[in-house]
Amino acid sequence: MDIQQISGGITAPKGFLAAGVCCGLKTVGNDLAIIYSQEPCVAAAVFTSNRFQAAPVSVSKQHLASASAFHAIVANSGCANCATGEQGIRDAQAMAEITAAFLNIPEDSILVASTGKIGTFLSMDKIKAGIRDALSTLNKEGGLAAAEAILTTDSVPKQVAVKLVIQGKQVIIGGIAKGAGMIAPNMATMLAFLTTDAMLSKELLDKMFRNAVNSSFNSITIDGDTSTNDTAAILANGASGVVLNESDLDVFQAGLNHICLELATMIVRDAEGATKLLKIHIKNAPNQDMARTIGLSIANSTLVKCALFGADPNWGRILCAIGNAGIDIDLGDIDVYVGQMQLVKNSYAWEFDHAEAHRILSMNEVELTVDLKQGDHEAVVLGCDITTEYVGFNAHYST
Amino acid sequence: MDIQQISGGITAPKGFLAAGVCCGLKTVGNDLAIIYSQEPCVAAAVFTSNRFQAAPVSVSKQHLASASAFHAIVANSGCANCATGEQGIRDAQAMAEITAAFLNIPEDSILVASTGKIGTFLSMDKIKAGIRDALSTLNKEGGLAAAEAILTTDSVPKQVAVKLVIQGKQVIIGGIAKGAGMIAPNMATMLAFLTTDAMLSKELLDKMFRNAVNSSFNSITIDGDTSTNDTAAILANGASGVVLNESDLDVFQAGLNHICLELATMIVRDAEGATKLLKIHIKNAPNQDMARTIGLSIANSTLVKCALFGADPNWGRILCAIGNAGIDIDLGDIDVYVGQMQLVKNSYAWEFDHAEAHRILSMNEVELTVDLKQGDHEAVVLGCDITTEYVGFNAHYST
Repeated sequence: MDIQQISGGITAPKGFLAAGVCCGLKTVGNDLAIIYSQEPCVAAAVFTSNRFQAAPVSVSKQHLASASAFHAIVANSGCANCATGEQGIRDAQAMAEITAAFLNIPEDSILVASTGKIGTFLSMDKIKAGIRDALSTLNKEGGLAAAEAILTTDSVPKQVAVKLVIQGKQVIIGGIAKGAGMIAPNMATMLAFLTTDAMLSKELLDKMFRNAVNSSFNSITIDGDTSTNDTAAILANGASGVVLNESDLDVFQAGLNHICLELATMIVRDAEGATKLLKIHIKNAPNQDMARTIGLSIANSTLVKCALFGADPNWGRILCAIGNAGIDIDLGDIDVYVGQMQLVKNSYAWEFDHAEAHRILSMNEVELTVDLKQGDHEAVVLGCDITTEYVGFNAHYST
Repeated sequence: MDIQQISGGITAPKGFLAAGVCCGLKTVGNDLAIIYSQEPCVAAAVFTSNRFQAAPVSVSKQHLASASAFHAIVANSGCANCATGEQGIRDAQAMAEITAAFLNIPEDSILVASTGKIGTFLSMDKIKAGIRDALSTLNKEGGLAAAEAILTTDSVPKQVAVKLVIQGKQVIIGGIAKGAGMIAPNMATMLAFLTTDAMLSKELLDKMFRNAVNSSFNSITIDGDTSTNDTAAILANGASGVVLNESDLDVFQAGLNHICLELATMIVRDAEGATKLLKIHIKNAPNQDMARTIGLSIANSTLVKCALFGADPNWGRILCAIGNAGIDIDLGDIDVYVGQMQLVKNSYAWEFDHAEAHRILSMNEVELTVDLKQGDHEAVVLGCDITTEYVGFNAHYST
């Protein structure tokens, strides 16, 4: 398919401007981002499954339900605006109101997001000044500054863009994300914002975006915790002049998947204290959901993560994690490989070269393949090791 | 109630003998245990929920289904007899057959259990010699040796006994257990064996034992992994001469609960690399299952466990874990206390003395109370911290 990765992020698609500024919510660096399209957009979003939901999640959900046209995303780091009650809701609404007033657009055409410390209120003076500052500096090169402004403990900003050719024209999708590194003093928050200059219906965008999120952001795990603020959102403004037809959907889905998977991979690579990326390929499952659930069970097993840290080919822990996935399948005929080397055959011990397995597991990217041999569906899940550094970091932060 | 803790373990009840011997399955120490009653017993057992089940689990389940009278439990450490296929089943059956032949009892009157390394076959020559050796040394003081013979990475043997007065007579319950410390190179296995000289029906014993297991062994967690070999079993031989009446059930249940909770607490205290016991009390829940599920979600959160290690009063991680428990309840009105100190009121930040909270969290036993305020059920869950030592231990074992 005609997918080409290009430089840039959320401002790569036509008609999108962005800015990232420092308004003092964090002690250092940009902490307020705005993404804007003068043309009205259709929007879709996926939010945290945690039953505690931060105020900006509630407000963005309301806007998605009530509005049909969207113009902007406003996000801050340094304060999660979570466990903040009615005041938190009013503050999240105010983020949208202030932006709407400056831009002269409806306030429900704006999505809001926050990440950072839980249980503290947004400093609305800083937010107001930051929004004014960001709006005055919105520009075509502002994507990277916006990517920086949503970071917390991430070590690098994350952005990616792809160019598609559809109906003979150029269609671009871009995205930024912040990672699942643990935010002291609280929990991981994953934020991802995508933009595209394609035009498609809200229903179609929603469906295709959820597909892409399921096989990317919902298929990564650092430590199994789901934050109160997780948000992935996309705006589509149609500025490319291309209205997607039925025959264009495959390439557009592939482009979306590429962006989401690249950003998700960057997030895992940048996980706190992690030294290795674990790519788990579950093959020949009865369906994709089962494959993903089994993959996540392996990736979330603390013992598997310890073994990965120590480069120990400890296949017993992998079988144990599969057995703990809560999936009703036959477990008698499973093969397990690390790289190209088989560790388990038909669910039994298999003679392998331990030194070579240790060498493969010592690399900074490790591929694990689990063949269930009972269907033709598959899933890829990304995880990482748990390290003494991770435990030390998350233990010794003082609130 | 009239419950008195007494010294001893599984041989404290009348009519039970035991032995623990060294047959060479481990490099050092006792590794084969037999518990025996000449009088026929009723039996009950609870096994691992992991869908991978070791051969001895399958064999013991068969015996429980087919037999009505039981005489012995045979258990070994040093080899889990798991992922060993048909050969493993034959070996587990042979453990029962060998014992049955020596004692001249039916082979399905014997329960078997194994713990240790996964993916290797039992050395049946050693097992046979060990069984013969153990049977020749069965005695009234053999409970501690049996407790030692089921250990793997545990640092101390675990046994407890209680004396009840029922119908004016003495009834004794005893127990031994091995812990959920991680077994290199594989996973935790929890084994617990109880004995009592009370007489009651199989159905009643099964029901009461499951009650006791649910609020003890099923309410502890070290790292969320459930082993392939977990087994808790009880034998009741009636040697006290007391047949339990309806009016005796409360005191007998209390005795069972006491034994199981004591053993479970010993297991958590002895968890690998852990420095602190975390006792989580979930109050005012709609039902007990919900309370336990929420407690386990908190206890299994890697971030909560890191915060406990660092004595950080990180209440955001506790709320996050409650929100991730998958329980459909109102989360808007939750109070959280550490010791007597309130950290969260009505799900919002509460002013507290951080230095004092840090001091409370620095003790080697920490009580956490979560008040859900939406029912009158409760549960207590036991967990522990995760430490850099735990990660190091489980990473650097070389298979």
